[in-house]
Amino acid sequence: MRVEELSSVEFAKFVRKNPVVFLPLGATEAHGTHLPLGTDSFQPEALCEALADRLDGLVMPTLRYGHHSSTRNMPGTMGLRYDTLRALVADILESMERSGVRRAVLISGHAGSLHMAAVRDAAEEFVRRSSMRLMVLTDYDIAYKFPLPEDKEWPDGHGGLIETSRILALRPDLVREERPRGKFLDKEYMIVADPETCMPEMMAGDSSKATAKLGEEINEFIIDRLVKLIEKNLMG
Amino acid sequence: MRVEELSSVEFAKFVRKNPVVFLPLGATEAHGTHLPLGTDSFQPEALCEALADRLDGLVMPTLRYGHHSSTRNMPGTMGLRYDTLRALVADILESMERSGVRRAVLISGHAGSLHMAAVRDAAEEFVRRSSMRLMVLTDYDIAYKFPLPEDKEWPDGHGGLIETSRILALRPDLVREERPRGKFLDKEYMIVADPETCMPEMMAGDSSKATAKLGEEINEFIIDRLVKLIEKNLMG
Amino acid sequence: MRVEELSSVEFAKFVRKNPVVFLPLGATEAHGTHLPLGTDSFQPEALCEALADRLDGLVMPTLRYGHHSSTRNMPGTMGLRYDTLRALVADILESMERSGVRRAVLISGHAGSLHMAAVRDAAEEFVRRSSMRLMVLTDYDIAYKFPLPEDKEWPDGHGGLIETSRILALRPDLVREERPRGKFLDKEYMIVADPETCMPEMMAGDSSKATAKLGEEINEFIIDRLVKLIEKNLMG
Amino acid sequence: MRVEELSSVEFAKFVRKNPVVFLPLGATEAHGTHLPLGTDSFQPEALCEALADRLDGLVMPTLRYGHHSSTRNMPGTMGLRYDTLRALVADILESMERSGVRRAVLISGHAGSLHMAAVRDAAEEFVRRSSMRLMVLTDYDIAYKFPLPEDKEWPDGHGGLIETSRILALRPDLVREERPRGKFLDKEYMIVADPETCMPEMMAGDSSKATAKLGEEINEFIIDRLVKLIEKNLMG
Amino acid sequence: MRVEELSSVEFAKFVRKNPVVFLPLGATEAHGTHLPLGTDSFQPEALCEALADRLDGLVMPTLRYGHHSSTRNMPGTMGLRYDTLRALVADILESMERSGVRRAVLISGHAGSLHMAAVRDAAEEFVRRSSMRLMVLTDYDIAYKFPLPEDKEWPDGHGGLIETSRILALRPDLVREERPRGKFLDKEYMIVADPETCMPEMMAGDSSKATAKLGEEINEFIIDRLVKLIEKNLMG
Amino acid sequence: MRVEELSSVEFAKFVRKNPVVFLPLGATEAHGTHLPLGTDSFQPEALCEALADRLDGLVMPTLRYGHHSSTRNMPGTMGLRYDTLRALVADILESMERSGVRRAVLISGHAGSLHMAAVRDAAEEFVRRSSMRLMVLTDYDIAYKFPLPEDKEWPDGHGGLIETSRILALRPDLVREERPRGKFLDKEYMIVADPETCMPEMMAGDSSKATAKLGEEINEFIIDRLVKLIEKNLMG
Repeated sequence: MRVEELSSVEFAKFVRKNPVVFLPLGATEAHGTHLPLGTDSFQPEALCEALADRLDGLVMPTLRYGHHSSTRNMPGTMGLRYDTLRALVADILESMERSGVRRAVLISGHAGSLHMAAVRDAAEEFVRRSSMRLMVLTDYDIAYKFPLPEDKEWPDGHGGLIETSRILALRPDLVREERPRGKFLDKEYMIVADPETCMPEMMAGDSSKATAKLGEEINEFIIDRLVKLIEKNLMG
Repeated sequence: MRVEELSSVEFAKFVRKNPVVFLPLGATEAHGTHLPLGTDSFQPEALCEALADRLDGLVMPTLRYGHHSSTRNMPGTMGLRYDTLRALVADILESMERSGVRRAVLISGHAGSLHMAAVRDAAEEFVRRSSMRLMVLTDYDIAYKFPLPEDKEWPDGHGGLIETSRILALRPDLVREERPRGKFLDKEYMIVADPETCMPEMMAGDSSKATAKLGEEINEFIIDRLVKLIEKNLMG
Repeated sequence: MRVEELSSVEFAKFVRKNPVVFLPLGATEAHGTHLPLGTDSFQPEALCEALADRLDGLVMPTLRYGHHSSTRNMPGTMGLRYDTLRALVADILESMERSGVRRAVLISGHAGSLHMAAVRDAAEEFVRRSSMRLMVLTDYDIAYKFPLPEDKEWPDGHGGLIETSRILALRPDLVREERPRGKFLDKEYMIVADPETCMPEMMAGDSSKATAKLGEEINEFIIDRLVKLIEKNLMG
Repeated sequence: MRVEELSSVEFAKFVRKNPVVFLPLGATEAHGTHLPLGTDSFQPEALCEALADRLDGLVMPTLRYGHHSSTRNMPGTMGLRYDTLRALVADILESMERSGVRRAVLISGHAGSLHMAAVRDAAEEFVRRSSMRLMVLTDYDIAYKFPLPEDKEWPDGHGGLIETSRILALRPDLVREERPRGKFLDKEYMIVADPETCMPEMMAGDSSKATAKLGEEINEFIIDRLVKLIEKNLMG
Repeated sequence: MRVEELSSVEFAKFVRKNPVVFLPLGATEAHGTHLPLGTDSFQPEALCEALADRLDGLVMPTLRYGHHSSTRNMPGTMGLRYDTLRALVADILESMERSGVRRAVLISGHAGSLHMAAVRDAAEEFVRRSSMRLMVLTDYDIAYKFPLPEDKEWPDGHGGLIETSRILALRPDLVREERPRGKFLDKEYMIVADPETCMPEMMAGDSSKATAKLGEEINEFIIDRLVKLIEKNLMG
Repeated sequence: MRVEELSSVEFAKFVRKNPVVFLPLGATEAHGTHLPLGTDSFQPEALCEALADRLDGLVMPTLRYGHHSSTRNMPGTMGLRYDTLRALVADILESMERSGVRRAVLISGHAGSLHMAAVRDAAEEFVRRSSMRLMVLTDYDIAYKFPLPEDKEWPDGHGGLIETSRILALRPDLVREERPRGKFLDKEYMIVADPETCMPEMMAGDSSKATAKLGEEINEFIIDRLVKLIEKNLMG
């Protein structure tokens, strides 16, 4: 059930049943030559919809912009400052509370450390003055637990095997034919003005082995884990 | 052409042709008992897509949250503070510039005066240090110029005849059967903590006369006007 | 009764009678070649004094600086950023409340949309945590309702017929002999770095027809309307 | 010459002669039972006008609100937060520069340490990116150098002998008949929530000895000193 | 060489040799019942001194406060908000640049994700407008690479085997006799108002096995790694 | 008793006895050619330790950075912006309160007017919502009351006779042999971008007469005064 398709009255009625409300946190970010800029929006959006289906929850409109460090200067990355993202999440949480929401899950498709810090900073501040039960995560925290064969030559990462497979499962029309391989060049704690040089291919891993089938398995793996966690922690 | 469906390389290539880039500014807001909460997102999104089609432009991912005064306390209104909205628009404009965009049109489905002020505040500040050519408007500035018969009993407004017709044209599946009539009760310059009392029906106007046909005419009217304005002011 | 002429004890005594307290919001802004930079301060100041006389109220010291968009770059315009104006209004409202004020009217001589948004933003935020009864307006909301003959060649606006007449009534010594005519050139939603080009004469309308008599009528018209509104909404 | 009485064109013409521009920084603050709340506005305003007369300068509109610590909770004190005052001064300095002003003197009637810090903070930041020649002071820095007989019982201070005499010289109509004597109770570095207890009479000193003649002498003393300083430091 | 022991002239002379300047980022935070609140200050301070010795660098005064999430409510944790820590790091970096520093290493004893995000946020923003070569890390990024036998029952963490051993090596006088064992209870993405419940012992790991000898080995291990990294990345 | 040497449990136990907690506010600032950059840290740190000894109090970790106006551009001055210092003090006060502290004394070694304003601004704001008993001062408020022979040629000031003597008493190893004499050149209210020109010797006064004995006397003088003030105002 998508919030933006409900009327105010329908929303109010649904909320009185105390459902879990999902907020997909997307991004507009360069993901190699093969994946669309909306990659990090499509994943949490689909995930939240699947979870809402399974748990009779609601899905809020997706935020389609996030914070980006390493890909900041790549064409098509549309980044927010830390403070903007934090304020955005804080305001939406406050609005949700004003509308009666009492359980919420924020799922971010992007896993950047400053991006997640901004989301968590807003959330930590919020729970100090609210009784809403709140879960915050990036689906990549779980995706990286999926048992892949280790690939020492092309260790998986941004826009790599997992991410390409997941988008193949969700939006096959948007994945380009040519599938790159790329490496993450560790800057070894250097803070630089041209962080894009750490990913010359704008991605990391071997996307040539990606399949829709693998993507579906990973997506299902994430959903199963999250259903259990949410039932235990928010609905228990 | 939707930015989030392009890869980074495709985006960069397209931008080198110096297209007009459209940013739809939506909202999640109560619109009576008959219209969906996403009403103000659906309109500018469809509009930007039509304009991009006609003018070979690009459409950025839609912002789905805005600033709300009078409907702030109604269930399902998810509002941002002025500063959050302004920062959001400022950051996206800056990102667009970093990605090479040189002409942009921001179209907001919501027309609240503080909401539009936040967007314009960001835009005015931005053009002082950028050479991007920039247009900012709410499509309601034009919609209200559409020649409707005057209805003294039910003067048109939020969620009224025009808006209901436009959503009937775009998302007929989301408009409820029962179509309310409501009046805007002028607070006569009073600033109050319960501004929702100025719209007991959460809408203003007579939605019972709305038709998809009228909505299509209005949408076309807006598109025609904007195509001319954009060709003249941004592409001339 | 002007607040700045009272002692602390006299002020406290007066406030215990629960009077309406008026805050004139002025500006320092270019108004053509014929009007003084303080035009937008003189009008609300005189208005607040007249209203305080009629309603046994108090007049706070005038703020003489505001926010300006279109006249920002004209010589003599002394503008504040949005945030500064909003903070100023917020702090004064809070101080008034701390001093025991329970009814207030803020009247702005300047009617710019961002300027009024800043004032309203502060006021909306304030009433959510205060029980003060609060009215906010620009006197031009009412002035433009005064029945003038329509002038299609020189539609009235900033520094035009109404404003020149009102200053002729209040400060005839400060109105220059030569009275310009000027047009507002609509930028059609373009946001530009040189907004002053929209008013080459730094004013809009035909000031040559202005008279002190007309100004007095307009001022009286505004006062009458406001007395009624205030009696109804704040003193009822 | 008062800025707010000039037209934009007259102002621009005057500024081309590179005059010293004076900004009076006033306040609305409790000053005992005998002095008006506008005491700290009247003094710098009169001073700036006298200096502008003597030095062919310009006087900006007076800011009538400042920052207050010890008198914050007294009736009629209308205080700004530090940040608000600093932003206000910063914005006005920036506007003055945009309008072509190249020499300026800011004179504050209020001498509170946080108040002056806010003004100086804005000014220090400003001169790092501007070539404007800028002087900032409170006239009390000079007034306290006027040779008064030392009064061990009633050491002079806020609303005391000097201040009462000066207002008697400027606005005798606003000084009440009864002239209090009060002492400043040193809090010995304690930071307290009720700082008003440090001045039970809301003033410090023996105002009963105040005379208009003494006030004129002090005012003249300040003007003479400042004329010399300004000629030396800004016009040399 | 400690910056605070040098005079201004000695500092300027030293800086002209273009040394690496170390900034230790400490914290005041609960670390179990056995370790002192300054644990996270002592480690980076000693580390920076050792590195400065080895590389002929300078050590800035230690920041002794940081940002804390999970231990925030434990007695003795003295935490800063994210924005405060970020501003602090930003200002010090800017001051270092103004003083001529061109290579810097920031080492944080505390490794919290929001804490490190604040430091990196400041650093990323800084390098966009500075040519300073800058490295930012927590020594725990390296400490956790030290080959310890895996302890499935008491997985090492905050105040555990490594940290206790390191403090035993640096400040044995401050480590209490009784050495606790504790577990980190994973909140599984829940954001809670009482995060201290995730560490009932205020620490994680088995501190009973800690020895000064192990601490020395770990400290040496970190120093060796960092000397190599700094020589390669900052001095190469 | 230093907070950073206690464990969390020891700290909590100590705090239950309601001790006075001392926060030394230091700085890193140029102090002539003879004194170390940490001069303003060493003094309040030693002072707080002595006071804690005498009054059975606790000493918080020293802040080693402050705000600097006149010495801002001298090599080795590491300054914070006003807002950063204020936020730092505000956050630490809030943390102290969360940890149960109910009496506190903040002693700043640096006496700059904006520096002290930032500290007081945070403290004034804090006591409005806290019941903590709080004293804020710079030890130079008291040091300058020590009866020195007046030296008309070399009036004492920054890095002068008093300060050099005090550092000779505390850290004789860090005072250089050569002892300069310097004058403060009054800028007479001018706000300038190169304020360092007001102290060509980076100090003011005659340091050549400084002795450790005099420093000890001054330090003892300050401690005695403060012990009395604290016993009276915080412990009475």
